[in-house]
Amino acid sequence: MSADIKKQGTIWGVGLGPGDPELMSVKADRLLRSASHVAYFRKAGRAGQARRILEGMLQDGVTEIAMEYPVTTEIPLDDPLYNQTLSAFYEDSSAKLRALSLEGQDVVVVSEGDPFFYGSFMHVYTRLNGDCPVQVIPATTGMSAAWTATGLPVTWGDDVLSVLMGTLPEDTLVEHMTRADALVIMKIGRNLETVRRALHRAGRFNAAWLVENAAMPNQSVQKLSEAGQKVTPYFSIIVVHGNGRRP
Amino acid sequence: MSADIKKQGTIWGVGLGPGDPELMSVKADRLLRSASHVAYFRKAGRAGQARRILEGMLQDGVTEIAMEYPVTTEIPLDDPLYNQTLSAFYEDSSAKLRALSLEGQDVVVVSEGDPFFYGSFMHVYTRLNGDCPVQVIPATTGMSAAWTATGLPVTWGDDVLSVLMGTLPEDTLVEHMTRADALVIMKIGRNLETVRRALHRAGRFNAAWLVENAAMPNQSVQKLSEAGQKVTPYFSIIVVHGNGRRP
Ligand SMILES: C[S@@+](CC[C@H](N)C(=O)[O-])C[C@H]1O[C@@H](n2cnc3c(N)ncnc32)[C@H](O)[C@@H]1O
Ligand SMILES: C[S@@+](CC[C@H](N)C(=O)[O-])C[C@H]1O[C@@H](n2cnc3c(N)ncnc32)[C@H](O)[C@@H]1O
Repeated sequence: MSADIKKQGTIWGVGLGPGDPELMSVKADRLLRSASHVAYFRKAGRAGQARRILEGMLQDGVTEIAMEYPVTTEIPLDDPLYNQTLSAFYEDSSAKLRALSLEGQDVVVVSEGDPFFYGSFMHVYTRLNGDCPVQVIPATTGMSAAWTATGLPVTWGDDVLSVLMGTLPEDTLVEHMTRADALVIMKIGRNLETVRRALHRAGRFNAAWLVENAAMPNQSVQKLSEAGQKVTPYFSIIVVHGNGRRP
Repeated sequence: MSADIKKQGTIWGVGLGPGDPELMSVKADRLLRSASHVAYFRKAGRAGQARRILEGMLQDGVTEIAMEYPVTTEIPLDDPLYNQTLSAFYEDSSAKLRALSLEGQDVVVVSEGDPFFYGSFMHVYTRLNGDCPVQVIPATTGMSAAWTATGLPVTWGDDVLSVLMGTLPEDTLVEHMTRADALVIMKIGRNLETVRRALHRAGRFNAAWLVENAAMPNQSVQKLSEAGQKVTPYFSIIVVHGNGRRP
């Protein structure tokens, strides 16, 4: 074997949990404190929530790789340009990570919550898997922190839990809201009015809780009916608890 | 204030994550290593999975409180005796924890996965909350470890995820399996045949994965269609991945 052939580095897809650095797993904590290369997604011009969770944890001399979204809400989801722009961004991010792996560098790519649950990491994962060694570390989701913050268990006995995105059409939301016992609604943002209407139509509005910034210093928990017409932050989850069998 | 009035101890409901002790949160790890009292549920006569995760972590002289289920599968779920027996058990377990709290002892009550997600801890939580200070620490669920083990992200874009219990009636399973994009099925055990039939009827059988003992040393991952007719262990999850938008 020639001296040029290096062992490829591993791309670690590491979940950071919901926000509180203490809710990170022991393994994530260890990988991050000893990492030489740490990559995270963020919106251009922002510090980024993932990076914020890492504050004070990284060793001196770490190389940080900020992967900055070219668009998030500026282009409508259904415009083909949205997909093209994001696709080029993920290709480019993946190429950078692949190059580091080929140089023999391990890279820790962090995700908010659990990496395989609606995470951006999934888009580089599918592009890299096969080319580089990739390891994924599951984590506590934002929704677990959200229902914990309400002080009420989310599912009992045989309860059906459905996880819905606020970006779904109103009728689809109503259909699932009517049939499931417990509900989690994520990606609310500018869709809050649609979500509210759907909850009303499904008869679940009065049971809904709004949790903003779960497990973060600025966490807020309230009944949705008491939340007023305000805009919700990006990290917002609506929880409707199940009512199943409880001996 | 009389010298007799002690500060009440806190009951900590701590999630252990899916099985690998390294997937426990930094906070759970810290609480457990310094705990004077640790309580866990288990089936009488068994070591118990929660206790197994803690092996080697507890300090010398810790008081362990094993709360042993009087029944699990011996009495049918729909026999009123099932509920009565379990209810008496949870009352009794709660009374023990309450007494320790009144003595000023902090007690760490551990749960597999996340405590507020179909967990036994919820049944003592609802009985103690109000009487004692209770703090709940969210954790990585078994399902996160299960979909991570399949090597495929579970939900993309607007995918709807429904979490179903194998104990549900077959028609209810089919209804949700047909409508949701991604599926997680838990509490499979003796209901595996019903779950299989429901997946077939919903046209999802060939996309289903069976993950046994996720994040445990004896983890196994296979397509359900290749699993044969064998009995699944208690810690088994079926995952059907979503296929939503992916730029
Ligand atoms: C792209 S998804 C990522 C989900 C993440 N991978 C997880 O496991 O929680 C982003 C959505 O997650 C939800 N979310 C994640 N963490 C949250 C938190 N700590 N508090 C409130 N919402 C959160 C919000 O609804 C947000 O719109
Ligand atoms: C009473 S529920 C407890 C769920 C737990 N609180 C959680 O957050 O994952 C028990 C069911 O969880 C699932 N489960 C939990 N952890 C698992 C693991 N590590 N591997 C496979 N299944 C698991 C199984 O389906 C089992 O029947």
